[in-house]
Amino acid sequence: MTEATIGTSAFDRDTAITPRGGGVYDADLSADWTIGHAVNGGYLLALVGRALGDALPHPDPFTVTAHYLTASRPGPATVRTSTVRTGRTLSTGTASLVQTDEEGREVERIRVLACYGDLAALPDDVRTSAEPPRIPPYEHCLGARDGMDPSAIPPMTHQIDLRMDPATVGWAVGRPSGRGEVRAWFGLADGREPDPISLLMTVDALPPTAFDLGLSGWVPTVELTVHVRRRPAPGPLRVSITTRNLAGGFLEEDAEVWDSEDRLVAQSRQLARALLG
Amino acid sequence: MTEATIGTSAFDRDTAITPRGGGVYDADLSADWTIGHAVNGGYLLALVGRALGDALPHPDPFTVTAHYLTASRPGPATVRTSTVRTGRTLSTGTASLVQTDEEGREVERIRVLACYGDLAALPDDVRTSAEPPRIPPYEHCLGARDGMDPSAIPPMTHQIDLRMDPATVGWAVGRPSGRGEVRAWFGLADGREPDPISLLMTVDALPPTAFDLGLSGWVPTVELTVHVRRRPAPGPLRVSITTRNLAGGFLEEDAEVWDSEDRLVAQSRQLARALLG
Repeated sequence: MTEATIGTSAFDRDTAITPRGGGVYDADLSADWTIGHAVNGGYLLALVGRALGDALPHPDPFTVTAHYLTASRPGPATVRTSTVRTGRTLSTGTASLVQTDEEGREVERIRVLACYGDLAALPDDVRTSAEPPRIPPYEHCLGARDGMDPSAIPPMTHQIDLRMDPATVGWAVGRPSGRGEVRAWFGLADGREPDPISLLMTVDALPPTAFDLGLSGWVPTVELTVHVRRRPAPGPLRVSITTRNLAGGFLEEDAEVWDSEDRLVAQSRQLARALLG
Repeated sequence: MTEATIGTSAFDRDTAITPRGGGVYDADLSADWTIGHAVNGGYLLALVGRALGDALPHPDPFTVTAHYLTASRPGPATVRTSTVRTGRTLSTGTASLVQTDEEGREVERIRVLACYGDLAALPDDVRTSAEPPRIPPYEHCLGARDGMDPSAIPPMTHQIDLRMDPATVGWAVGRPSGRGEVRAWFGLADGREPDPISLLMTVDALPPTAFDLGLSGWVPTVELTVHVRRRPAPGPLRVSITTRNLAGGFLEEDAEVWDSEDRLVAQSRQLARALLG
């Protein structure tokens, strides 16, 4: 099997945008990135992030905040971008993803505020105290599809190669740890290597920490902010997500993404609602 | 000395906004909240947050993201708000803080995207694994003005009562710990109790973690996101700020704010540039 590359993979096809001029882009939200009837928020953010990378003078997302307003549906969508400020090393823009509902009315799905720069232009200094998550070797981790009835596997799960630390998947057999942690190896199923745009999807691709806290209901994202800190090296990524505070029906979920060179390439935090199931 | 209350304090006077109609507000940025020649980013966020709280149907900031575009100056300013979506329990809006430059041109200072709700309407469930920062008793901590030449104290330092954990202020005498941590007791100098709006300032009121990492230069904020998780109880707050990753000339700074009832009331993360001094 030939591995997909950046540009030829399913991820690139499904996040493609067609410029209409004036900072407006047409897109088609793919049903291949759904879980249940929801289109994955990270996939949507990557698609909007691609539009902003085209519209702004700098190529790479440095910090991207998305507010999820209404549930996106597979099918046609429009991304409208607007430049807020253009600087020498950073530029700032907003984007709005809209769809047309059954009555023909335009409905806004996501509003984004972001700052872009050029990751290749950053100096190579590293003074980090952060350490990569400790995850058992890939072959000792559990695939997201392992043991599942093939007809019950969500479409998005076929797009990614997720291998979870067995210590963080007790919830799958009714024994959540209560710590609010999930750790996994992560890649795209067709072998495409990571890049800054795919990191926007990666931070929202694991099962929610809420499962490890013993909740079984839906955990819709209200707001998600991603910082891309470095262009990822080729090879598998390690992702850890943690929740420290579940209170008042809301929880934060922090993600860290590490590349094969042990560099922290992305950090994210989202505020989500815990709808008790 | 009579203590100030919510509504009568210097903080309330200096973050006051005057509605002009149509979601537009006039304000006056006070020189009392400057450090060096910069107006504090948390103070500015509180002022913009007040305008959004007036413009949106829900009163309290739940998640607020600010992009700092250009340096604000003390003096007149205008906040323009716009409602993105109004829901039953949450509403989303944007705001823009602008000033007029010496040539009479309008310059945007800050762009904000935020979601508001009603903290009083949240259930009281708490399932947190987070623990308050360990800080010595208030009387064993070091005041931000202690030992300073009174003429060298930045104006903002007179507005707040900051008592820092001695273990995290070695940088002040040339011995940074290198851990990237600062912990402190926090209050307003005039005794005003904390509320959700003042928390937007509190998350950006400590000396930067960069000092504890051994950097001495300026650390301008690119983007700051705050989650307000609970209405704070009266009494002193504890604030911890930490940095895990300084790389490529950027660093993240995470803040947690805890109230006198040991509840985590706010979390924030900012992306800042480390301009080496």
